Amino acid sequence: MFKTSKVVFSPRVRKTPYFDSTIKYGAQSFSVYNHMYMPVSYEGPVEDYKKLLNGVQLWDVGVERQVQIKGPDAEALSQFLTPRNIKKCSIGQAMYTPLVDFKGGLLNDPVMLKIDADCFWFSVSDGDLILWVQGIAAGYKFDVEVDEPDVSPLQVQGPNSTKLMTKVFGDWVSDLGFYKFKEFNHQGIPMIIARMGYSKELCYELFLQDHSKGNELWEILWQAGQDLNISPGSPNIILRVEGGILSYLADIDRTNNPYEVGLDWAIDLDQEDDFIGKDALRAISLKGLEKKLIGAEIQGDPMTVFNEESWPVLIDGKRVGSMNAAVYSPRLNKNICYVILDIEHAASGQEIIISSPEEELIAITVDIPWLNRVRD
Amino acid sequence: MFKTSKVVFSPRVRKTPYFDSTIKYGAQSFSVYNHMYMPVSYEGPVEDYKKLLNGVQLWDVGVERQVQIKGPDAEALSQFLTPRNIKKCSIGQAMYTPLVDFKGGLLNDPVMLKIDADCFWFSVSDGDLILWVQGIAAGYKFDVEVDEPDVSPLQVQGPNSTKLMTKVFGDWVSDLGFYKFKEFNHQGIPMIIARMGYSKELCYELFLQDHSKGNELWEILWQAGQDLNISPGSPNIILRVEGGILSYLADIDRTNNPYEVGLDWAIDLDQEDDFIGKDALRAISLKGLEKKLIGAEIQGDPMTVFNEESWPVLIDGKRVGSMNAAVYSPRLNKNICYVILDIEHAASGQEIIISSPEEELIAITVDIPWLNRVRD
Repeated sequence: MFKTSKVVFSPRVRKTPYFDSTIKYGAQSFSVYNHMYMPVSYEGPVEDYKKLLNGVQLWDVGVERQVQIKGPDAEALSQFLTPRNIKKCSIGQAMYTPLVDFKGGLLNDPVMLKIDADCFWFSVSDGDLILWVQGIAAGYKFDVEVDEPDVSPLQVQGPNSTKLMTKVFGDWVSDLGFYKFKEFNHQGIPMIIARMGYSKELCYELFLQDHSKGNELWEILWQAGQDLNISPGSPNIILRVEGGILSYLADIDRTNNPYEVGLDWAIDLDQEDDFIGKDALRAISLKGLEKKLIGAEIQGDPMTVFNEESWPVLIDGKRVGSMNAAVYSPRLNKNICYVILDIEHAASGQEIIISSPEEELIAITVDIPWLNRVRD
Repeated sequence: MFKTSKVVFSPRVRKTPYFDSTIKYGAQSFSVYNHMYMPVSYEGPVEDYKKLLNGVQLWDVGVERQVQIKGPDAEALSQFLTPRNIKKCSIGQAMYTPLVDFKGGLLNDPVMLKIDADCFWFSVSDGDLILWVQGIAAGYKFDVEVDEPDVSPLQVQGPNSTKLMTKVFGDWVSDLGFYKFKEFNHQGIPMIIARMGYSKELCYELFLQDHSKGNELWEILWQAGQDLNISPGSPNIILRVEGGILSYLADIDRTNNPYEVGLDWAIDLDQEDDFIGKDALRAISLKGLEKKLIGAEIQGDPMTVFNEESWPVLIDGKRVGSMNAAVYSPRLNKNICYVILDIEHAASGQEIIISSPEEELIAITVDIPWLNRVRD
């Protein structure tokens, strides 16, 4: 279970367009993400996880704000912002695009959508990335407009998600490739429909483009899902760790470079174009890593409480790293977690001690992910 | 009362250095501010308010993160960032410095501390202002380092605050001028001690410079306050509205320019130096305002529930603005609120209808603040 207190609802933190639906269908606890309330639990993380695996779920991820870059220099600025080579991204395609600062530290890890030749969206993790993009655009004189458009994503997750999506929006959805999207208007509700992947499960993301229609969209999907085991859910920490998915600010932050957290594949130092952090990342890649994120399996009974902060990792009584996210995975029947370890210890098969506030836990390091995502 | 749900504690959102003390002394509900948990209520906003007025309170405002600008161009960049003329700010002085974007919209409203000739802190409201400052610094080639230092403010509020501060830190504190500060080390705890003002009440702010010593600092003050009616508190919405203090993202945001929310006094268009938004603010000042923030007093019984979002304001059935923050003030014995109205209605003495989800409330507009702050 999560440890909780009360959260106050006040106008400083906004509600997503699906907020009333999340309350109606039983959201029991919230966090705050990008200045908005995000439901994080309905019947509890384990029950929510089990229901997802046996049907289809609606996840209110309206907290994923979009940074829209539009104008003649939109592609040039987008490339300047990320070490990923985006030249091969076609219109209607999405890409995972980590962003780093001038020292190579991770600023955010958005999914980028190429909406048009001169229009890109960055669907951001927790952080006011728009301030960075606007500051960079102004200072480096890119000819673009940078705004937050009226877009509020809703995810459709789980093994029955394709059935639900085709039932509501048509058979064309089943032909959508991995990380591909199309604009679609359903009964006057404008949106972009994408095939995405938060975990190893099937997943679609509906980028609603009219915030006044959030509860209407939720209800259409809810009613259509009655014979498909539909339930409400939220970005689930058990699914996340099983799939090796990183959560910005929980698992990684600006003190991490992309190499040490396994994002090598998203960095292209050989591309001709310059990008923010290129020199820093080259220096890091030449010098070698000081620490590395890896998985670990914790021995003992199934864990029932999630860590509220990172816990120290010890070998022979000496601190060698930290543990960021630990869960019990019912389908693996294992306690699994992420650790960031000093590089000399960051190999699989290593015994480590994780020092929780209550006891010292014994764990063995392993490679991640435990479960691979479904791709084409 | 506040309407509440549960908030989950997870590693994505950080705890302040005073978190354990806030739990120990009875924090009942939290919000999230700058990616950190902020206590917002102990015995409820009305009880907390009454206790403040009869003693002294400790407020955990560790969520106020500092953006530190250091280097040869620190003053030049600080001036470029704000419309306020900071040339008269001396070392050891603080200034309220609203920041605007290139269109004149309010980006944040920090208090700036001039730590040294080449070092400035911006103590920020809710928002990752550091991303803006770093982007601007890089793009416009200012020779500075921009970081978030290890600083976590704690406020000492209320009529007995000077007694508590002098008892613990010495008589020199009573000589601190309004918005003046000094570095001080107390029993190995490094901090900057400032005389500040959140409300009309006496207020000091301790900028703790070692996060490992938050609970130790809290306990020293707590024990010393036992004969001074000490209690735990938090930035109190009743005090805030009484004093005409604005809360960024609750009352004002990027859709507002400083003129329409009463911050004219902080704008200097005549200074020689350029600053971000100068052209836009000049255009706004020439064109005149379209809307304006003003106070209003709501008739009827004392309000017992705080609004969760802004409510529409009507005149003759037509929407003319919105109501952002309403409270019952026990010492004024009035329901008071902020409204932002179309400019033709933004004068005192106007009858308006505030359309709450439950009923239509009748209110009369008034000038703000209701209570002035204590200054030298």
